[in-house]
Amino acid sequence: MSMVDPILFYFDFTSPYSYLASEKIDALAEQYGRKVQWRPILLGGVFKALGTVSLVKQPGQADYSVKDFARSARFLGLPYAQPAEFPVSTVAPARAWYWLHGQDCALARRFAHEVFRAYFVDGLNIADAAVVLELAQKVGADGTALEQGMSDPAIKDRLRAETDAAVAAGVFGAPWIVVDGEPFWGADRLPQIERWLETGGY
Amino acid sequence: MSMVDPILFYFDFTSPYSYLASEKIDALAEQYGRKVQWRPILLGGVFKALGTVSLVKQPGQADYSVKDFARSARFLGLPYAQPAEFPVSTVAPARAWYWLHGQDCALARRFAHEVFRAYFVDGLNIADAAVVLELAQKVGADGTALEQGMSDPAIKDRLRAETDAAVAAGVFGAPWIVVDGEPFWGADRLPQIERWLETGGY
Repeated sequence: MSMVDPILFYFDFTSPYSYLASEKIDALAEQYGRKVQWRPILLGGVFKALGTVSLVKQPGQADYSVKDFARSARFLGLPYAQPAEFPVSTVAPARAWYWLHGQDCALARRFAHEVFRAYFVDGLNIADAAVVLELAQKVGADGTALEQGMSDPAIKDRLRAETDAAVAAGVFGAPWIVVDGEPFWGADRLPQIERWLETGGY
Repeated sequence: MSMVDPILFYFDFTSPYSYLASEKIDALAEQYGRKVQWRPILLGGVFKALGTVSLVKQPGQADYSVKDFARSARFLGLPYAQPAEFPVSTVAPARAWYWLHGQDCALARRFAHEVFRAYFVDGLNIADAAVVLELAQKVGADGTALEQGMSDPAIKDRLRAETDAAVAAGVFGAPWIVVDGEPFWGADRLPQIERWLETGGY
């Protein structure tokens, strides 16, 4: 694989560690002359396919997880407020992302940051399609066209196909970041990713 | 809580991330004038109490986990070889540790390092009481006295009680490290632990 291949970044908009990684991954990649391909997926679909549950729903882990989300954000210097509704369905923002990405990659990137921050900083309910449309318009999208696009069967299929492909590629959680074929799970692997980019593998 | 309270370090001898933490935690604590209280527990007992399973046994996670154990060790500059038998029962080394600790804290510490390295570097089967006795003798223990000590009902009860107490304290995995009441799960939280020690909380 060429050393200038893009980094793959699988994420779910309701995943706190995905939010943390989303704030760091592009700048990290850029330091090493790399681009990042963002790939929203539905973690619910991944867990269903594997027969697993999220860490936060494992018995005994909820309190620690919520503490660690906020603490990890502070550690990384990022704002964070635990959403009242958590986790939520991210079908609406993920479909919107794929439609926007088909129109304009840079717009999709701005939208993704807007959605993550709306949920994890401002506490908006990103499961709500009306909220999603408003966030998209805020970053420059055509709301009417996006609303139609989100209900396009091709967009619905795309999100399902991306989630299935992620499972087939070995993804079992998020964020899931792949550098030259090497998979890294979790925002806490950012230092290892940096080392990998520096050294070409260790 | 006083700023000179010891750091609590819960671990299981068959846990790869516990091994990684075991090689770093004392030096890290010492930098900040702290001691570390080591506490072997049986993760199997923790999982049974909570109705959970280890990460490596979650569907789809085994291959990634084994890759991450070795990669995390390289990242930290530590030797690592995935044991052929994994995971194994750690009743024997954990009981031995509590008996040795009752005799001589420093001896128990040397023994713990010896057990971790025997398993994760040299591939010895630390579930075997004969192996455990040999490792203990290598670091200066009286093998005959230890063999008797390991079958003392008080030592068996102690290990069970420490595992139960860990569950009651919120432990659901290992390593589990507590600094002034703040819990951290995983060797990948060492940088956060260092920040906590530096700043007194963030």
